[in-house]
Amino acid sequence: MRAFALKLLVGPALLLPLLLWPLLNSGRASAGPADDAAQQSARIRAVLTDQQDAWNRGDIDAFLVGYWNSDATAFAGAQGIVRGWQGLRERYRKGYPDRRAMGTLTFSDLEITPLCADAALVLGRWHLEREAGPVGGVFTLVLRRFPEGWRIIADHTSAVPVPAAGTP
Amino acid sequence: MRAFALKLLVGPALLLPLLLWPLLNSGRASAGPADDAAQQSARIRAVLTDQQDAWNRGDIDAFLVGYWNSDATAFAGAQGIVRGWQGLRERYRKGYPDRRAMGTLTFSDLEITPLCADAALVLGRWHLEREAGPVGGVFTLVLRRFPEGWRIIADHTSAVPVPAAGTP
Repeated sequence: MRAFALKLLVGPALLLPLLLWPLLNSGRASAGPADDAAQQSARIRAVLTDQQDAWNRGDIDAFLVGYWNSDATAFAGAQGIVRGWQGLRERYRKGYPDRRAMGTLTFSDLEITPLCADAALVLGRWHLEREAGPVGGVFTLVLRRFPEGWRIIADHTSAVPVPAAGTP
Repeated sequence: MRAFALKLLVGPALLLPLLLWPLLNSGRASAGPADDAAQQSARIRAVLTDQQDAWNRGDIDAFLVGYWNSDATAFAGAQGIVRGWQGLRERYRKGYPDRRAMGTLTFSDLEITPLCADAALVLGRWHLEREAGPVGGVFTLVLRRFPEGWRIIADHTSAVPVPAAGTP
């Protein structure tokens, strides 16, 4: 009886990983174990901090690592909707030819909302201190988790003409 | 031998639903069965079409049904980031006191990107034909699926001064 009970337990134990595999993976777009909400937030915050640091040392290519390297990556704002990582790189390299033009970028008030294991919403403020005068505003980002890490797939950025008065 | 084999199969079959339950539900934020990607897109498109139709018959309250009725709902744009469904309702009722002020709203070029079973990203264009002159631009929406249906949790809208030239 003991031998039988053991077999009954061992049988399912061996079968389970095979049976569960498609189910465990059905909700995931990318490889690797899922982050919990706290890990998600920490990893996403690190992506944005890395972007800020890269910008402030004049390294546009390192700044761009935060974006999904795809033709589908979307940039929305007062210019409309523009697609593609490569095009963004060209515009940034042209628009910010040197360290002085780039100024000093600060992200603040980041609010990270996990949507599921592989996607998150980020709201925040940006401020650019430059010789040409300061400029700043707000952004909405959507990030997805890829095998290489969290990357921005959509960036909607607005300039806010006067300093933001804060929420009412 | 047959009786044993049958037991081995029946045992796991009975155990599986109990064992799988937490795993099957771990990725879901809301109740009810998940939509597939096509259902998601159709349902989200219907939310936005309902909003457009409500606006165009002068029914602001029906328009607002598309937004998550929460203090956390986020509206971003050139005004900064403003929170809350109730505040949005007050601004809309004040800013658009009658049918004539509301004009005729058209959404176009909707691109719906499912992020997971309960969240999606939408990019699109808006155009408002009014007596005060036409205005339009682009938006980025994040929607989540609630028991009552898909609702916008974050809306980043920009006016685009000249007619959008389209993607390069």
